Amino acid sequence: MIAGIELGGTKTVVAIGTAAGELLEEWRFPTTQPAATLGGASAWLRERGPLECIGIAAFGPVGIDPQREHYGKMLATPKPGWTGFSLIGALATAFPNATLTLDTDVNAAALAEARIGAAAGLDDVAYITIGTGIGGGILSGGRLIHGALHPEFGHLKVPRQPGDDFPGVCPFHGDCLEGLASGPAIAARWGQAAHELGPDHPAWDSQAWYLAHGILALLAIVSPARVIVGGGVSQVAGLHARIRSKLLEISAGYFPPAMDPDYVVAPALGQEAGIRGALLLASGV
Amino acid sequence: MIAGIELGGTKTVVAIGTAAGELLEEWRFPTTQPAATLGGASAWLRERGPLECIGIAAFGPVGIDPQREHYGKMLATPKPGWTGFSLIGALATAFPNATLTLDTDVNAAALAEARIGAAAGLDDVAYITIGTGIGGGILSGGRLIHGALHPEFGHLKVPRQPGDDFPGVCPFHGDCLEGLASGPAIAARWGQAAHELGPDHPAWDSQAWYLAHGILALLAIVSPARVIVGGGVSQVAGLHARIRSKLLEISAGYFPPAMDPDYVVAPALGQEAGIRGALLLASGV
Repeated sequence: MIAGIELGGTKTVVAIGTAAGELLEEWRFPTTQPAATLGGASAWLRERGPLECIGIAAFGPVGIDPQREHYGKMLATPKPGWTGFSLIGALATAFPNATLTLDTDVNAAALAEARIGAAAGLDDVAYITIGTGIGGGILSGGRLIHGALHPEFGHLKVPRQPGDDFPGVCPFHGDCLEGLASGPAIAARWGQAAHELGPDHPAWDSQAWYLAHGILALLAIVSPARVIVGGGVSQVAGLHARIRSKLLEISAGYFPPAMDPDYVVAPALGQEAGIRGALLLASGV
Repeated sequence: MIAGIELGGTKTVVAIGTAAGELLEEWRFPTTQPAATLGGASAWLRERGPLECIGIAAFGPVGIDPQREHYGKMLATPKPGWTGFSLIGALATAFPNATLTLDTDVNAAALAEARIGAAAGLDDVAYITIGTGIGGGILSGGRLIHGALHPEFGHLKVPRQPGDDFPGVCPFHGDCLEGLASGPAIAARWGQAAHELGPDHPAWDSQAWYLAHGILALLAIVSPARVIVGGGVSQVAGLHARIRSKLLEISAGYFPPAMDPDYVVAPALGQEAGIRGALLLASGV
């Protein structure tokens, strides 16, 4: 039996499924304190029977390199009570005989979309999510990118849209991509939540500018064959077409992969990308 | 016997060496038309004896994916006569029994610096070169990043330094990183070549701003453990320290890898990184 855990900043999902990433049974509940959250997840999974492999898709920053001392631990996070908590420690105690595989939530979603979703069959895929924050996971040459810690796509800095002097809302950087284009940035800038803005609101032109520049950075650094843009703030009608149009304009013909009409697409797995990616992590795909 | 070819936009290097990347004999000559350049390189190598493995480090854009129709061909390049020329075709004709391994010149340099240079022992390394253009090669998890085409680091867009309204010199994008911080950009902006500017010239503060923002993008997307900055325009005294100081300022404590005092360093292999990387490509390291 294969199990997955998607540990998000606001909700946690646990599931039993197949090595192909199919969900057989899942439970979604609010993320609270670390011991209670992992305890609840472990108890639910234990009731499902003996588990051999568990994939964990976690919010960050989190240590994902098994060679390093901080492996499996939550690093400095503004989320109260979580800094320093060892996910792997808690799960190894609860499931001493299971193989645990940990990655970031966005890498798990990138893996799921690349294997069984909107980029099925491609080996070079980026997955971006725009919600409370902005994050990105990348599959390059068929392998997830980790690096020295892990990417923090939301904290990229991109050029300002001409005339835009909004200071941004990132507590660290002000006007990084997350500070300018996340859900809280939209709410602070326009005085309304993203889902309350109609599809013709000027906010979306601004979103297209900033997200297209973020994707241009992906093209310049990892050259994805396709970019999937998901998350709550991506769901307004027409946003993906606007981003692609802006991307073609700013790339000025220089990046051949971006000319694919399906270069910037919505996720195919919707809300299930993270947990299904956790199942794929568990199965070692 | 292992051979390497570094095909640059202005000079070509051919060499015989060891699988460990040591140079035994090399020849440097100007890059002219494709048939003459590859013909000269092949003739010199053939005189050295029978060759089993040849590594090729080429300027771009060039097709490096053996699965694709454009493998081994020079893609649309402003360099006259080179667009569409098949490097691999020419070399396979000259050396029908040799194994050919092709990658970008910057990936070859990244590989050499990561194996036997300034980042020896690290598996997550970025190599940036600042000269006539700006390019970057990336080793991630011990493997070179290729992507759908290959990265084009110089065409990244970064925020403008406050008050800077120089339009940039990139014929495609104007003010991309290469348009703002390459050698020709410095010459156009300041009216003097980079090597004529003293180490206290304000040009270097501007260079530090733009290169630090480029490195921040690398941190956000691939999280290197070390970044090597080379090329002719990187050789002024103190530039690496300036870049690192600006990087610490703009990352605002958010990127732990960047806090390493050796995070931004000069190449250890100097002008030899590309050709020694070609030898390592040939040896399959």
